[in-house]
Amino acid sequence: MANRRGHGHGFTPAPSDSPHPAESGHRIEPVIPSPLPPPVTSSPKTLDVVGIGNAIVDVLVQADDAFLSDHGLSKGSMALVDEQQADRLYASVGPGLETSGGSAANTLAGIAQLGGRAGFIGRVRNDQLGAIFAHDIRSAGARFDTPAAESGPSTARCLILVTPDAQRTMCTYLGASVGLDPADLDLDLVRQAEVLYLEGYLWDSEEAKRAFLAAAEVVRASGGQVALSLSDGFCVDRHRASFQELVDGHVDVLFANESEICSLYEADSFEAAADQVRGRCRVAALTRSELGSVVLSGEETFVIPPYRLGALVDTTGAGDLYAAGFLYGYTRGESLERCGRLGSLCAGQVVTQLGPRPQASLPDLVATHLG
Amino acid sequence: MANRRGHGHGFTPAPSDSPHPAESGHRIEPVIPSPLPPPVTSSPKTLDVVGIGNAIVDVLVQADDAFLSDHGLSKGSMALVDEQQADRLYASVGPGLETSGGSAANTLAGIAQLGGRAGFIGRVRNDQLGAIFAHDIRSAGARFDTPAAESGPSTARCLILVTPDAQRTMCTYLGASVGLDPADLDLDLVRQAEVLYLEGYLWDSEEAKRAFLAAAEVVRASGGQVALSLSDGFCVDRHRASFQELVDGHVDVLFANESEICSLYEADSFEAAADQVRGRCRVAALTRSELGSVVLSGEETFVIPPYRLGALVDTTGAGDLYAAGFLYGYTRGESLERCGRLGSLCAGQVVTQLGPRPQASLPDLVATHLG
Repeated sequence: MANRRGHGHGFTPAPSDSPHPAESGHRIEPVIPSPLPPPVTSSPKTLDVVGIGNAIVDVLVQADDAFLSDHGLSKGSMALVDEQQADRLYASVGPGLETSGGSAANTLAGIAQLGGRAGFIGRVRNDQLGAIFAHDIRSAGARFDTPAAESGPSTARCLILVTPDAQRTMCTYLGASVGLDPADLDLDLVRQAEVLYLEGYLWDSEEAKRAFLAAAEVVRASGGQVALSLSDGFCVDRHRASFQELVDGHVDVLFANESEICSLYEADSFEAAADQVRGRCRVAALTRSELGSVVLSGEETFVIPPYRLGALVDTTGAGDLYAAGFLYGYTRGESLERCGRLGSLCAGQVVTQLGPRPQASLPDLVATHLG
Repeated sequence: MANRRGHGHGFTPAPSDSPHPAESGHRIEPVIPSPLPPPVTSSPKTLDVVGIGNAIVDVLVQADDAFLSDHGLSKGSMALVDEQQADRLYASVGPGLETSGGSAANTLAGIAQLGGRAGFIGRVRNDQLGAIFAHDIRSAGARFDTPAAESGPSTARCLILVTPDAQRTMCTYLGASVGLDPADLDLDLVRQAEVLYLEGYLWDSEEAKRAFLAAAEVVRASGGQVALSLSDGFCVDRHRASFQELVDGHVDVLFANESEICSLYEADSFEAAADQVRGRCRVAALTRSELGSVVLSGEETFVIPPYRLGALVDTTGAGDLYAAGFLYGYTRGESLERCGRLGSLCAGQVVTQLGPRPQASLPDLVATHLG
């Protein structure tokens, strides 16, 4: 079965007209026409997943519904704020708990914790929060070599308001992370990835978006796949046409929750949205909170149950850790159903604690629940 | 009963030969000879407790016993490290969770959260961690006006290694906090305090120690009392003679755990140490982890049970929150037994979570368990 470390099998996407030579699972026979060009070069893959995202330190604060409505915040969403707004909002909330965050960064830290070979690209400033971010992702086991900015805005911060129903509402000051541009890209790192993973939030910055598109070209040219997480319903609203085009033309694995996939296709129901996305990318993994998730690939549909591992404390990072578990399995050639279960399990853990980086051992959890 | 806000009763310590005019509890008849001089002035008391301590941001990290022994760390203790050592140690640990800390600061934040009128004096640098510290203590409801240092070492950090048995082992880089000196003291704030609270850790810095002694003079001259927490067995070892002199001549309320009180009097048993301290200060509140605590005053002894409010997660802040609950009751004229129960309850809460600042509502807890 899956070889946890140093597994030497290539992860070359199969052109639609030739069967994939690998030994098992969904990679043998892609059941949908692949939009991928045949690989131009076939670099050795030393990393399972490389992610590009905003490098953010989270400030977790408890809040009630009245606070959200007083400040015009929409529960469960992510709003962008400038530094002044961030400072003003921070001054109005109670004591916080700081932890490294960032959607794709959470995913890559989770993959590394599971034993996957992970790398992250994102921009911090050379300040105290930047040092915390760099320490945390490296100490989780991921490669992180993006040089810290020597000047300009400070490291990105996200104020996360956790309400008593465990929902999180986020206000992000993008700071230094917004300046990520193609020049910051370590293309050698990207070439080493079997899967390049992107958070949709990058679309809020033109530079970061261009950086991602450049990286997507490189990873595909070197035989890798591209995964995208849609991040947030409002973010999809802001960039709908661009995301639709991206999914149709450049994405192999799409992650989205119910509101995001409905927003992407302006669909009235989850089922209608699922019908819309089917066939547009190799795999779509759609998460539905307490309903678990649904994984679509060609004509296949896998309904994955949720894992309830304790009281619901904070949903921060649930989607990010779902993607971590899924991609960890995916890059090991596991069946799509098992990929979904791995995602569901990791998401089930992170919602039982405060913050988006699992404090429990994910490998222990997998051993206990999935053998 | 206790008036939560704006209660106008003075907290003038009674000279030993005159009965205290206040209405209830242990303050009516001090049963031990008071070492206090009669009040010289009687300033209006607008704050219940003002604390002086190291202003620290904690970095909480999970570790195992092997890590402690590999790095020569003594479980449960606090070791001082310089910035280089701090950086080296940080590089060798896993991902962390950052939260404001500092022993006395935790106590004052707890008192404020309970509804007490609290102020804190301590020194941060004008950097990101300093801003986090200032935000957290102010947003808990405490006054904090000490100006941030514009240059010099960065804000103090404490790496807290939490082992699976929930014990914490601390490595502190004192940074900017060590530079607290009498010039930083807001004597107006001190004069407004019914109780001045000090952490023993200040004794590791000559400037901070002098600052505290100056403040103790001021608070006593204006009719307040002085409370001291011994902080750490090794800290007591480093400063035994000085602490003994302090307890005999300047301290009204002493907080210590079993190892600290034994270290102070080089006693072989808790009972021997308790016999030694009895009568040397107005009140001694001695905590004994899972055995609860013992409060001594004159010939009186109150044995206080522990409160078990959930699984033991992290003992960081247990002593600090005990002092918070105790002093909150004490400055409201509650009986010493109830003061002890308030302390025990707050400590019982904080050990069920990661970090030293209660994430649950302390007033709700008091209402539920102590009516």
